Amino acid sequence: MTTIRLYDLQVRDDRRPSPFCWRIKYALAHKGLPFEAVPTALTDIPSIAGGAHKTVPIIEDGGKTVGDSWAIADYLDEAYPDRPRLFGSAAERELCRFVEASLFVSAGKSLLMSYLKDIHDHALERDRAYFRQSREKLFGRTLEELASERAERIEAARAGFDSVRLTLKGGARFLSGAHPGYADYIVAGFLLWIASIATAPLLMSDDPLLAWLGRVQDLHGGLGRKSPLNALVA
Amino acid sequence: MTTIRLYDLQVRDDRRPSPFCWRIKYALAHKGLPFEAVPTALTDIPSIAGGAHKTVPIIEDGGKTVGDSWAIADYLDEAYPDRPRLFGSAAERELCRFVEASLFVSAGKSLLMSYLKDIHDHALERDRAYFRQSREKLFGRTLEELASERAERIEAARAGFDSVRLTLKGGARFLSGAHPGYADYIVAGFLLWIASIATAPLLMSDDPLLAWLGRVQDLHGGLGRKSPLNALVA
Repeated sequence: MTTIRLYDLQVRDDRRPSPFCWRIKYALAHKGLPFEAVPTALTDIPSIAGGAHKTVPIIEDGGKTVGDSWAIADYLDEAYPDRPRLFGSAAERELCRFVEASLFVSAGKSLLMSYLKDIHDHALERDRAYFRQSREKLFGRTLEELASERAERIEAARAGFDSVRLTLKGGARFLSGAHPGYADYIVAGFLLWIASIATAPLLMSDDPLLAWLGRVQDLHGGLGRKSPLNALVA
Repeated sequence: MTTIRLYDLQVRDDRRPSPFCWRIKYALAHKGLPFEAVPTALTDIPSIAGGAHKTVPIIEDGGKTVGDSWAIADYLDEAYPDRPRLFGSAAERELCRFVEASLFVSAGKSLLMSYLKDIHDHALERDRAYFRQSREKLFGRTLEELASERAERIEAARAGFDSVRLTLKGGARFLSGAHPGYADYIVAGFLLWIASIATAPLLMSDDPLLAWLGRVQDLHGGLGRKSPLNALVA
């Protein structure tokens, strides 16, 4: 079996923040597929696979290149059907899309606006000018303005995970039940992203999310421990 | 096969509003199990099955009585494993719990507060005193106060379905993919509930939810058409 190459967004101190790359690292580990996470700057992306994709993750598997986290997850289940499946059924896949959509709506914008300056400050030197320019244009405010007004937004982002908290109250070990699944990787990816760049905590230390997140971090040889939670938790 | 009896909350004009009963009517139809929906007043519930359950739905199947919509759904998949499954996998079941939790968080309270007086006004005469007293105590406001201040809450409740709208943008016919599943029944149940009692519309006529909701209403011989959408849509 060839080792799959995963282009994985890299920032300062070799941190790997991308929530979409996290999903795919978990997906590859879930399927037991050996992979190499290739450190990738934002500004490297146009030179991968002839500029076919505008974002990471991108994987190369033998001669095949696949971009976009959903396309990659589908590819992995199709190409490696004998390995543990990411989606046990078409319904599970669609409900994972609901989980993603639900968190985009409930937490996405407040997370992004709260932590945009932190993301910038952790970006590689050569990525920063592009990042600042494109994001300030998108939000119509400077990164510094967004950072100065973030206290309430962080509270809103924290509340944005209430759906996860309420689900976990049911007592299951994972969002996908007794065993972890792609829905867990989606949600954990958002939190590992913030953990890798935050300069203000998102979660309180008694947050019931943390027991679940610790279980996800421990999976697959402690894959998620590469993003310590110190900066995530007050 | 014996006909299953489903105790189904009844209000004025024989409408059947309960979102939890709707799920189970859909669940029974999904499994192709013949059932009789027994009209039930709120104040009838203590006299069913020796008062074992405080809410409907309750089903009687032969000698067995089961209450609570999740317990009933699990019972149906266990007792009738050869019929189409409600949950294709343990993961699908848990993700349906996430769908429910997510809508409780995003829309539950604003829906309930917006439509509490309408629910009261549609209740059977003999249920109204109990309903008013218990709900006014819960919210610390009169039903009339809640109704007079509901414009913004209805907007919030409408936005509370944005996760569903964003998921459906992916192009699937149902939240569960090409085929309807329990997640569809959960979400449709909330909307059929409001449709049966609303005196102010929840949705705009161009809402992309409506095409999906129409598909769900058409399922299983048009089961959901028993709750017309006129009052739901502006």
